[in-house]
Amino acid sequence: MTHPLLDLPPLTAAHFAAVEGRVAALLDTEQDVVIMQGEALLPLEGCIRGGARPGSTALNVVTGPYGQTFGNWLRDCGAAVVDLDVPFHAAVSAEQVERALAAHPEIDFVSLVHAEAATGNTNPVAEIGEVVRAHGALFMLDAVASVGAEPLLPDAWGVDLCVIGAQKAMGGPAGVSAVSVSGRAWERIAANPAAPRRSYLSLLDWKERWIDGGRKALPHAPAQLEMLALEACLARIEAEGLEAVTARHASAAAATRAGAAALGCGLEPYVHDARDAAPVATTLRTPAGVDACEVVAHALAADPSAPLIAGGGALAKEMIRVNHYGADATREAVESSLAALGAAVGTVSGRVSGAGSAGAADMEAARRAVAKAWG
Amino acid sequence: MTHPLLDLPPLTAAHFAAVEGRVAALLDTEQDVVIMQGEALLPLEGCIRGGARPGSTALNVVTGPYGQTFGNWLRDCGAAVVDLDVPFHAAVSAEQVERALAAHPEIDFVSLVHAEAATGNTNPVAEIGEVVRAHGALFMLDAVASVGAEPLLPDAWGVDLCVIGAQKAMGGPAGVSAVSVSGRAWERIAANPAAPRRSYLSLLDWKERWIDGGRKALPHAPAQLEMLALEACLARIEAEGLEAVTARHASAAAATRAGAAALGCGLEPYVHDARDAAPVATTLRTPAGVDACEVVAHALAADPSAPLIAGGGALAKEMIRVNHYGADATREAVESSLAALGAAVGTVSGRVSGAGSAGAADMEAARRAVAKAWG
Amino acid sequence: MTHPLLDLPPLTAAHFAAVEGRVAALLDTEQDVVIMQGEALLPLEGCIRGGARPGSTALNVVTGPYGQTFGNWLRDCGAAVVDLDVPFHAAVSAEQVERALAAHPEIDFVSLVHAEAATGNTNPVAEIGEVVRAHGALFMLDAVASVGAEPLLPDAWGVDLCVIGAQKAMGGPAGVSAVSVSGRAWERIAANPAAPRRSYLSLLDWKERWIDGGRKALPHAPAQLEMLALEACLARIEAEGLEAVTARHASAAAATRAGAAALGCGLEPYVHDARDAAPVATTLRTPAGVDACEVVAHALAADPSAPLIAGGGALAKEMIRVNHYGADATREAVESSLAALGAAVGTVSGRVSGAGSAGAADMEAARRAVAKAWG
Amino acid sequence: MTHPLLDLPPLTAAHFAAVEGRVAALLDTEQDVVIMQGEALLPLEGCIRGGARPGSTALNVVTGPYGQTFGNWLRDCGAAVVDLDVPFHAAVSAEQVERALAAHPEIDFVSLVHAEAATGNTNPVAEIGEVVRAHGALFMLDAVASVGAEPLLPDAWGVDLCVIGAQKAMGGPAGVSAVSVSGRAWERIAANPAAPRRSYLSLLDWKERWIDGGRKALPHAPAQLEMLALEACLARIEAEGLEAVTARHASAAAATRAGAAALGCGLEPYVHDARDAAPVATTLRTPAGVDACEVVAHALAADPSAPLIAGGGALAKEMIRVNHYGADATREAVESSLAALGAAVGTVSGRVSGAGSAGAADMEAARRAVAKAWG
Repeated sequence: MTHPLLDLPPLTAAHFAAVEGRVAALLDTEQDVVIMQGEALLPLEGCIRGGARPGSTALNVVTGPYGQTFGNWLRDCGAAVVDLDVPFHAAVSAEQVERALAAHPEIDFVSLVHAEAATGNTNPVAEIGEVVRAHGALFMLDAVASVGAEPLLPDAWGVDLCVIGAQKAMGGPAGVSAVSVSGRAWERIAANPAAPRRSYLSLLDWKERWIDGGRKALPHAPAQLEMLALEACLARIEAEGLEAVTARHASAAAATRAGAAALGCGLEPYVHDARDAAPVATTLRTPAGVDACEVVAHALAADPSAPLIAGGGALAKEMIRVNHYGADATREAVESSLAALGAAVGTVSGRVSGAGSAGAADMEAARRAVAKAWG
Repeated sequence: MTHPLLDLPPLTAAHFAAVEGRVAALLDTEQDVVIMQGEALLPLEGCIRGGARPGSTALNVVTGPYGQTFGNWLRDCGAAVVDLDVPFHAAVSAEQVERALAAHPEIDFVSLVHAEAATGNTNPVAEIGEVVRAHGALFMLDAVASVGAEPLLPDAWGVDLCVIGAQKAMGGPAGVSAVSVSGRAWERIAANPAAPRRSYLSLLDWKERWIDGGRKALPHAPAQLEMLALEACLARIEAEGLEAVTARHASAAAATRAGAAALGCGLEPYVHDARDAAPVATTLRTPAGVDACEVVAHALAADPSAPLIAGGGALAKEMIRVNHYGADATREAVESSLAALGAAVGTVSGRVSGAGSAGAADMEAARRAVAKAWG
Repeated sequence: MTHPLLDLPPLTAAHFAAVEGRVAALLDTEQDVVIMQGEALLPLEGCIRGGARPGSTALNVVTGPYGQTFGNWLRDCGAAVVDLDVPFHAAVSAEQVERALAAHPEIDFVSLVHAEAATGNTNPVAEIGEVVRAHGALFMLDAVASVGAEPLLPDAWGVDLCVIGAQKAMGGPAGVSAVSVSGRAWERIAANPAAPRRSYLSLLDWKERWIDGGRKALPHAPAQLEMLALEACLARIEAEGLEAVTARHASAAAATRAGAAALGCGLEPYVHDARDAAPVATTLRTPAGVDACEVVAHALAADPSAPLIAGGGALAKEMIRVNHYGADATREAVESSLAALGAAVGTVSGRVSGAGSAGAADMEAARRAVAKAWG
Repeated sequence: MTHPLLDLPPLTAAHFAAVEGRVAALLDTEQDVVIMQGEALLPLEGCIRGGARPGSTALNVVTGPYGQTFGNWLRDCGAAVVDLDVPFHAAVSAEQVERALAAHPEIDFVSLVHAEAATGNTNPVAEIGEVVRAHGALFMLDAVASVGAEPLLPDAWGVDLCVIGAQKAMGGPAGVSAVSVSGRAWERIAANPAAPRRSYLSLLDWKERWIDGGRKALPHAPAQLEMLALEACLARIEAEGLEAVTARHASAAAATRAGAAALGCGLEPYVHDARDAAPVATTLRTPAGVDACEVVAHALAADPSAPLIAGGGALAKEMIRVNHYGADATREAVESSLAALGAAVGTVSGRVSGAGSAGAADMEAARRAVAKAWG
């Protein structure tokens, strides 16, 4: 039995290097790019364990669940950590970061998540980068949920370590991921005796064995199929044009926000200011007394493929996340999500109010709102 | 760029022959099997153009749209055609076929569709085969919509030409298809001077160049990827077990029929007698005044992946087909189809009656009915 | 078990139409393009059965085995056939075609193969097209072995029916194929009462149900995976650039011809004039007494993936074909073919001469010749 | 553009768990199996960093390059390391291990490579396991090069941590890998404060979040395509039967060893005792003065797909490795490797001896030897 996942010719080093080059082009970066053979948590962990050490102080901007993970890793490494906690319904501002840096001049590492799929926020990285650069700290950005959905310019913004994954707006695989590494970052990691070496976590292994070796031999066997999938999603993005791809995500976000309001069933945007809303996903707050989990369960029972998730953790009962990335960043998918949501909120609200099934949410108005917002 | 659809090793003759053997095993047939390199219409056309000729008389059982196509081909070939038209809401009986054969002793070819996805009927082939064999005519069966969904035993049933495609209950590709050919059928076709030869339509080419040549060289280049997909779906069926696969389809049909009744929104089974209902798809009649096209449009707007089709042709406005084959032959898919249907009928009925959105169909009752019918 | 050949979303009509448009762009044609769901023999047969009829006279240029197939089909259709047989070691000239047309003013159909992979020739279609157009006959071209390997401009050259397949220089699938159809060709076929209609062979079905219907519904289910593979190979060609692809094939042909001469083991070009040599494959004549089949068997025993074939039919014992298309149109593949050939000719020659293994052919000289010819 | 690597439905937790179960069946183990989302180096590193700590003493059996890597990791973890170095041309014996354990009663961890593809040895794990169990140490086995090629029974042999990858004899992907973990091993790791936690390297994360959580949610996003490829190669092995697969590898090894001797060109088995020879690959020593790198270069120039590698490190100039695993564990592939080798040794020897190309190695004798050894 021939199988298309088993019988492909092996991936050559030159082929691997070509994919790497296309990732660099996507990020418009002149820095080294390392494609790591695992989910984006792998390079994120590698960056922190490489960049942090006893004696260093990190500003960890916590705008969602990943910020907490970063804080744990930073502490594991023996770094002092200043957590900048931001309410989940808003972005962090450059001023907030600036104040935190001013209060802790010893900060030499800043970790930030660009867009938070979980909360629906996106943070102003360009402005924050300016502040971080002025301070002189190393700047790590988790751009997994932003790449492909909105502009991402690590070099222009002064990002030293920019980590991406392809599984969201790029419409690609989760099993490989990439990080751009500035010269400053390489120096910092190389000077860190505790930085991972001879390890699956190690960025330095890739530098020494792959990049400095002229890209002749990989430090270990690649995840060939995930690499080919990454290449294929890059080719798709190149064919559509990166600007068109990000514009499509922006439209999907605007249309979801506008359409949800037009439904008239009491769903409110969770992110207060539309400028803070991430193009990758829109979060909505359910009406008082209407359980978000129940709404999502009803919507998924009617449409199992609807890209809806009940908000995690403390927000599980009051927040709904509408994903609109990759294949779901289309007008049809947005309309379909709104229809499923509108019907489900109606059902749950009716049960709550004792009125049986409530009147149908106004799908016609939502469709008009989507049309207008799509532009 | 390596691509899994472009960079596979070529399909060898031995590999092709192995797939052929697995199709024969699926059909439990000792006859020759020819895998033709096109949709099932290709072997169906090849069978009729090979088997029919001026001077022959064909009994063409018309239980749906394909019967009309077969009649056209038969007349193209210069055969006299006796059409046995059966109301679309019922199966044909062996007695009806027997009467037609008795009235036209000159009949030497019988064409029949096993299961009609379009009308939701399945015909009693075992009993009909007995009658046809007694009469002595060549018996062609279109089993595209039955294979994998219900028992199919061409040898035991005396079928001379049994045509299958993989795109329905087999969950496989549409681009290749197969036909089992009895010795009697080969003789008839070989004796027909007008039978396609040196042609893409030709069964004889496959006999002479491939089978009689010891399966060394194919008459033309194969559709490699469709062949590999056919092999993969055969492997899946073998792993689950053919009986388990057909049982799953039977459950899906019973559950859809029971669930639709339990919804209480006025949907009636289109096929009167449950014994005539095809395991591949269930057809339902909408309540008076409720346009089936409109219902399906509403249901698909809410759930674009729902396996629902408005009945074609004259029945477009009153019949809905619920497909439940392949990946849709699961309890979850059946429940999801019923939910979409129930909501959509409610909406359209309400609009028709002037009452706004009607009360929700009773999904809870439908779910209980599904559970009971699934067994 | 999820399988990449079974679990893809179905191909939409819009997607099918997009692939069609890319084929038209590849051919630089404004004519209709029909993608048929079978090997290129299917549209070739469809063209001839559609274009030829009793009362018509066809000039059939026979430069290889396919010409004989075309002649058979033409006679099947009741057309009078003028065969223009050309020695297999040379191309046909426009003058030869012109003379044949002048001798038979009644000719209304001309069939020609562009490049012959089997003999290694390519014919001057642009010049022949001028002559055919001046005469007024319908012009059918089999461009399966030329598309992607050399310039192919059906509109500019006056080709009415240009049939392509993707399995040679396009590096794509064999299971679907395409034909461009001029307005004149559509008229001729529509006026032919014997042209295939309601048939897998029918071009008219595609015109009436697909093209004239606004490309909403296909006449039958497509071979989805072969279509996706066709699209993928088009994307690859677009990315490399069609001119670069044809240049690569031209280089491979020149290098093979030059390298074989440099080997010094007695292999001679089968095609006398280098201008007639096809970019898709190079044919070589073995030294007197050296059996081509034996040489190829030895070469394949040493290197089972070498793209070598012993010449078919009457030429089996004296001709070797070196394929250099698709993935084999690279300098490495050409060198590898030459190495396998040189060693095998040495072995067989030695045995023939009684001298045991002959001296090694001069691979170093061949490599230099390849380098020079590659440019 | 639909792409088979991008448009598959996502991998569910249940699907992931099913693959895990099939790996456990392959290993005939009742222990927990963790499928890690990276090359086999990932679980190997995870095992050592989880199992070793300051205060522990490890016996590290060094039979090839991976043993050196394990030693480095063990020392990184602060463990005392007793290296048991074995000459690369022989297996380690249970007696050698027993002596080392007796000399160092404090040893609480033993690391061993089952089969060494690099040297062509395989070690007697069953006997060694008995000795290790008697001593009471934790036993880690690297079975990447043995799984699928020879019997592998971690439970019966007392292996606590058995790491496999699919890229060799399983004919599968390299990008995911697996480890079986005994209850004793889980206890040891859980008790190690320095064991990786909340880390890509962590086995404990999989235990706590995945296994103990009832296999509901993965600790991070999986490499879906590599998982599907793993499942597909397991299905292939199950269809052929594991015993048949290992028998095929044993035959390939015996045939390569016998065929190389029969060639008569001076290649000697690198592994002295045939009982120590690994079924995954055969290593050969070149005749004095004949550079192995040069031989392999010649062989690959003639047959770029030949599975030959010049021995690494200190052995680069005198050792050749013939791989015969996965798709190369066939008689045809073995014969093809021998042909390429025989010709290349002849060429290089001739040049060395000044005699020009030497006489051809005796391929006919080699073929007879292969036939006899294949059985």
